[in-house]
Amino acid sequence: MGKFLTTREENYSQWYNELVVKADLAENSAVRGCMVIKPYGYAIWEKMQAALDTMFKETGHVNAYFPLFIPKSFFSKEAAHVEGFAKECAVVTHYRLRNKADGSGIEVDPDAKLEEELIVRPTSETIIWHTYKNWIQSYRDLPILVNQWANVVRWEMRTRLFLRTAEFLWQEGHTAHATKEEAVEETIRMINVYATFAENFMAMPVIKGVKTENERFAGALETYTIEALMQDGKALQSGTSHFLGQNFAKAFDVKFNSKEGALDYVWATSWGVSTRLMGALIMSHSDDNGLVLPPKLAPHQVVIVPIYKGNDQYEIMREAGNKIKAQLKELGITVLFDDRDTQKPGWKFAEYELKGVPVRLAIGARDLENGTVEVARRDTLEKQTLPLDGIANVVKQLLDEIQNNIYKKAFNYREDHTYKANSWDEFVDILETKGGFVYAHWDGTKATEDIIKEKTKATIRCIPEGNAMEAGKCIYSGKPSTQRVIFAKSY
Amino acid sequence: MGKFLTTREENYSQWYNELVVKADLAENSAVRGCMVIKPYGYAIWEKMQAALDTMFKETGHVNAYFPLFIPKSFFSKEAAHVEGFAKECAVVTHYRLRNKADGSGIEVDPDAKLEEELIVRPTSETIIWHTYKNWIQSYRDLPILVNQWANVVRWEMRTRLFLRTAEFLWQEGHTAHATKEEAVEETIRMINVYATFAENFMAMPVIKGVKTENERFAGALETYTIEALMQDGKALQSGTSHFLGQNFAKAFDVKFNSKEGALDYVWATSWGVSTRLMGALIMSHSDDNGLVLPPKLAPHQVVIVPIYKGNDQYEIMREAGNKIKAQLKELGITVLFDDRDTQKPGWKFAEYELKGVPVRLAIGARDLENGTVEVARRDTLEKQTLPLDGIANVVKQLLDEIQNNIYKKAFNYREDHTYKANSWDEFVDILETKGGFVYAHWDGTKATEDIIKEKTKATIRCIPEGNAMEAGKCIYSGKPSTQRVIFAKSY
Repeated sequence: MGKFLTTREENYSQWYNELVVKADLAENSAVRGCMVIKPYGYAIWEKMQAALDTMFKETGHVNAYFPLFIPKSFFSKEAAHVEGFAKECAVVTHYRLRNKADGSGIEVDPDAKLEEELIVRPTSETIIWHTYKNWIQSYRDLPILVNQWANVVRWEMRTRLFLRTAEFLWQEGHTAHATKEEAVEETIRMINVYATFAENFMAMPVIKGVKTENERFAGALETYTIEALMQDGKALQSGTSHFLGQNFAKAFDVKFNSKEGALDYVWATSWGVSTRLMGALIMSHSDDNGLVLPPKLAPHQVVIVPIYKGNDQYEIMREAGNKIKAQLKELGITVLFDDRDTQKPGWKFAEYELKGVPVRLAIGARDLENGTVEVARRDTLEKQTLPLDGIANVVKQLLDEIQNNIYKKAFNYREDHTYKANSWDEFVDILETKGGFVYAHWDGTKATEDIIKEKTKATIRCIPEGNAMEAGKCIYSGKPSTQRVIFAKSY
Repeated sequence: MGKFLTTREENYSQWYNELVVKADLAENSAVRGCMVIKPYGYAIWEKMQAALDTMFKETGHVNAYFPLFIPKSFFSKEAAHVEGFAKECAVVTHYRLRNKADGSGIEVDPDAKLEEELIVRPTSETIIWHTYKNWIQSYRDLPILVNQWANVVRWEMRTRLFLRTAEFLWQEGHTAHATKEEAVEETIRMINVYATFAENFMAMPVIKGVKTENERFAGALETYTIEALMQDGKALQSGTSHFLGQNFAKAFDVKFNSKEGALDYVWATSWGVSTRLMGALIMSHSDDNGLVLPPKLAPHQVVIVPIYKGNDQYEIMREAGNKIKAQLKELGITVLFDDRDTQKPGWKFAEYELKGVPVRLAIGARDLENGTVEVARRDTLEKQTLPLDGIANVVKQLLDEIQNNIYKKAFNYREDHTYKANSWDEFVDILETKGGFVYAHWDGTKATEDIIKEKTKATIRCIPEGNAMEAGKCIYSGKPSTQRVIFAKSY
């Protein structure tokens, strides 16, 4: 199949674009910047959703749903927030179409103009805090631990499937607390949930840390992030959790009576991950033959392909295939038995390699005679012939091994592409020739951060959790610094 | 609690509106016609989604996601469709806001006008069939059995929580087939899935049938429906499944090569249910004390309320309550153990009655001494004291009994409010004084249907499945008729 995909070395970006389409994950739609998520891609997203939703509920959260539209005036209420989002908003101005007078089609009815325009939500802090005002009077009403699964729209000018689209799917948690401490604790709890999800389900190692002021969410006092490294040496911000302080409570006048009888503004957090994670998943593990999926998120963990000639052999294979399938299902493994006669085995092998099915079992007439089956694993492309007897348990173990192996591989890649730079030349050289995460000293100013970005395209991905304090000099300005931060080019 | 809710007899409509808000199901938002679905309401919707999604997958469907926005020109392509939806569309005309020159806030940036306006989807046939054109070349690509969970917008002028809102949540299935027969079969399969879901999960009896031409979906050749009867004698259309013929394939030029080598247009179906089902659920079973929920859709099937004084008793109750909770959970029952000390037992009893928790267990000090527990069921409001020993199995059986009982109650209500009318006077009298389903003869013309609606507000809900053929005369025109159809006032 290699020849059907541009290789990563030839053109990483093109490899990604081709893979997303050819593996039936997503495609561009008739609407600029909006994607169609195809069934195979959506099945992976559903598995992500299910795992995350369980983790949210285990940490005490409940789901709710707030309106798609936000009145324009709400946006002006939090100054930083409007600055961050106003330039990329889809705006609803009318609520009716009508037939053109000349019968040539339909047009917007000018009589159906809205008094106040509505913004299609780019994120829901404003409409939610407007709602919370009515939900919160006393400390007894707190905390509110709500999550929403929804679509949002940000009118991006340059879009790429999953990584940056005008409409995307996500979840956004919006919590309200009586104390600062509790809100900070929640912010950190949720970045930890994201990190656990990324590592345990996506098999994607991440670095947790906080953003610099430059890179903070519009309206946040602190933004926590998880950062992953893609195979082209670029970072991908994979999830963020924001401590919003009392900014939105003040903007929407949300106060509560404390246990002690004082009236105070409510403390807030918000946190989200999106279909962007699909892009991260694809780029973390896949190779020139196609997708490589972690077994925990693969729609089909195993595919069984029978090899046969004629109807008699087919009947035997069908029976044998269904028997193996039943054994695997009993162990909770999702299995596709592809006994279609419209496609040849070789075509199927290539197809499931492209689609990243973790384990492929092939059974032919000779296998059945010998009581064996050919087992191929997608991550290493290794094949071996194993006894049919007890195969289900062997496959179950193999799936665990694959899950661990692709994590380890991604982890090693990241370690191999993590550097310390001690001079500007070294810094620039690493970014230009190797990519990856670069730990370097920074003087803590926005000005320096901006100029480094301008000169190298690299940004500070985060100040990592538990960072070692180390006296040094800023890589660019030479001014004193107390710790290294992580720079990288990014998506 | 009765005094907190308007009774159904006093004012049914007000009873409904109050119940939805007081039971924390939903509320109106700052955006006209759009609702906030609160966590307790959303938890019920999630249970509905999970059950339906499983049924869709068991019948071979997969989920996908298509854009929120539809180019305006797509709407003109199917004549009946645009006629049906153009008058209630939210239209996006711009993609950016800017600061006002005088610094007084933000405004729509006139330079960011879209070349072609985008419609927020009221339903997705057009964008999906535009997409299917690229997915379908040959009979090998068929059938396509896709479902989408999404939000849609229809700019209704008069809205009511859950029943009719500008934005609502739903699922929409869109399938493509090689033959007419297969598409018709799919249309019927899905109305059967809806009927099974309504009866088995919602405990809501429904009548299956087909719509008259008047009431068909805009663009369909045949619309199948399930109709339920609410406690005020009005019908509620609860789900529809449409046979679309080749209309959308022709509008979007979707052809395929058949097995025989001929080129033909693809056959289509679409089918959907929405958060409107929440309204149906509420109105089917609830009473003047609040919600009554079928155990299969209740977020908490059982609530345990401890009655205690002081810390010592509390510790004992906590242990006893958690023990019962664990026993119930082991049987797969969802349990809330409400041991909050911020509210009194009486307040809790009223709260969970209002929220429709099917079974309430109360434990006091004397109960523990005697080894008993008080069991109250929400549907009949009956209480009994039962041995603690073996209580989990008793509760499990009770939940089944409640599920069956509320179905039976709703079924009996419907039977008691189903009539045959043989004269116009009788017809009008039933509709005015009793409500309910009225089986009556109709001459089969749109003109008669329209005038009956004008005079009585009743519409033909459906021509029921397996309807008995019976010669008669139209209730209004006196012209010959071959069968009775079902009339009712409706939501």
